Amino acid sequence: MSLEKAAEFLLGHDNYHILTHANPDGDTLGSGYALCLALQQLGKNAGVINTELPKKYLYLTDGVREQDFEAQTVVSVDVADEKLLDSNRPRYEGKIDLCIDHHSINRVNAPLKHVDSEAAANCEILYRLFPIMGVTMTKQIADCLYTGVSTDTGCFRYDNTTADTLRIAADLLEAGAQHAYINKVMFETKSKKQLALEQAVCDTITYYFDDRVAMIAATLEMRRKLGVADDELEGLASIPRRIEGVLVGITLREREEGGFKVSVRSDSHINAAQLCAKFGGGGHAAAAGCTVKGSLEEAKQKLADALEEFL
Amino acid sequence: MSLEKAAEFLLGHDNYHILTHANPDGDTLGSGYALCLALQQLGKNAGVINTELPKKYLYLTDGVREQDFEAQTVVSVDVADEKLLDSNRPRYEGKIDLCIDHHSINRVNAPLKHVDSEAAANCEILYRLFPIMGVTMTKQIADCLYTGVSTDTGCFRYDNTTADTLRIAADLLEAGAQHAYINKVMFETKSKKQLALEQAVCDTITYYFDDRVAMIAATLEMRRKLGVADDELEGLASIPRRIEGVLVGITLREREEGGFKVSVRSDSHINAAQLCAKFGGGGHAAAAGCTVKGSLEEAKQKLADALEEFL
Repeated sequence: MSLEKAAEFLLGHDNYHILTHANPDGDTLGSGYALCLALQQLGKNAGVINTELPKKYLYLTDGVREQDFEAQTVVSVDVADEKLLDSNRPRYEGKIDLCIDHHSINRVNAPLKHVDSEAAANCEILYRLFPIMGVTMTKQIADCLYTGVSTDTGCFRYDNTTADTLRIAADLLEAGAQHAYINKVMFETKSKKQLALEQAVCDTITYYFDDRVAMIAATLEMRRKLGVADDELEGLASIPRRIEGVLVGITLREREEGGFKVSVRSDSHINAAQLCAKFGGGGHAAAAGCTVKGSLEEAKQKLADALEEFL
Repeated sequence: MSLEKAAEFLLGHDNYHILTHANPDGDTLGSGYALCLALQQLGKNAGVINTELPKKYLYLTDGVREQDFEAQTVVSVDVADEKLLDSNRPRYEGKIDLCIDHHSINRVNAPLKHVDSEAAANCEILYRLFPIMGVTMTKQIADCLYTGVSTDTGCFRYDNTTADTLRIAADLLEAGAQHAYINKVMFETKSKKQLALEQAVCDTITYYFDDRVAMIAATLEMRRKLGVADDELEGLASIPRRIEGVLVGITLREREEGGFKVSVRSDSHINAAQLCAKFGGGGHAAAAGCTVKGSLEEAKQKLADALEEFL
């Protein structure tokens, strides 16, 4: 459906639950809170439903009012598949009224969908949607949208960044987005513990396929020893991809419940989403994730085996 | 002088030597080669005079013609002080005809100066200058200008990034700048050796003033052991500033000739340029450099003493 139709739908309904995906990132949370602020500005009831809200994203909730109401309308943002609702899946599966997303493969089962895979970030879509709805851009909304646009493009570093992305970011700066603060929190700040963990994780680097693939691992033992929470591990995923000559960088994070949460970062040579799909995961061509069972050695071997056909 | 006057001067002369600063970065080199390409496009003779050209910047020379001519006109780009010409100083000191710069303190002795400290990068100034000169934007010029704009803003992460900066970057993308390649080379790629060096350097972290200051050091011994060249050390400077709670991050790189090359990165609390000025160096409020003599312990102590009055 067109953006105009999506705007019409949103204006014609009320009492919104806005769903974000599990292991939330800046784009799904930025989208969620931006839409919530926009709907509340129009006099509607709205709330964001997350599986979790890591501390560093708390500023996104500035200006959001807590409202007590019964959900009538459900909208998902940046959710490619209802599986990714995780702990919210039982309550909301099959009940999404409108899905707004930018993933090239979207499997959400909803009567109304606006999916624009040309958008570098889902927040770009909302940036275009809000004026059609008559929403006034505020500093708070600009902070949310900037967060999504910046995080999904690696702060405008990645290939998905377009001239449009940069012009939208320019407008958001003019609307008051606290860009330097946001980028510092999202990309630069690490605790002493995280730095120590990175040191430990870098010691685990193993190379495959003539150094074209590099894997690193964060084990539960390392995390316990250093006292690092799971949500502090996000930055690790970009480490192996940065090594000269490495086409695919893979980061394994051991899970409390067994097995490994796997992040794949890839150059243009290999489609990370296709690789992860082999393990029931998904994402984008350059960045995707999945879960792999077994011991660390087994998990690495499974990934190496799956990579064989791509290289 | 105004941009219009600078354009008039450049159109009215010929046989250019374009000077960049020592320890060159993306903005001085991007400015140098962009201006060289622009002048050659207008049928003039021009060459860029560097103290060195690190390998990763080689793409900036794409499309630049080697011309054999006698220098008649000297222009400096992104050079705040003639001292920074280093090995080129004896030949060019006092002979600069036009100085184009964006540093808030510019000490170059030249009859004509266009200094715009509002510009996040010197390349922003050239982006505005070229249309006045009638220069056609090419992919090669766009690559050079994008390199300067991106590197001097930490890929649009830092506080100096403005809406204008982002719109200029958008235009450069549309002109064909290979942004993803440039950002990968400038910000992401590190060799296995560099990664190992980072590991070693992080082990040297020391904190001062209740952890508000962090210092790291790369010694000649580490470099020799790992076989890392001096120009591969650039990325180290951003490490200490990234630690949560750290206001000033200081990186010391031991010099072959004794003493340490010092990079200071600072939050808004402390002016890095003022600190470095105490040791005869300079730069910007957020990022500056200087040289400090003595052993590692002595150098660190001198820096800590100098910091005392700022904290």
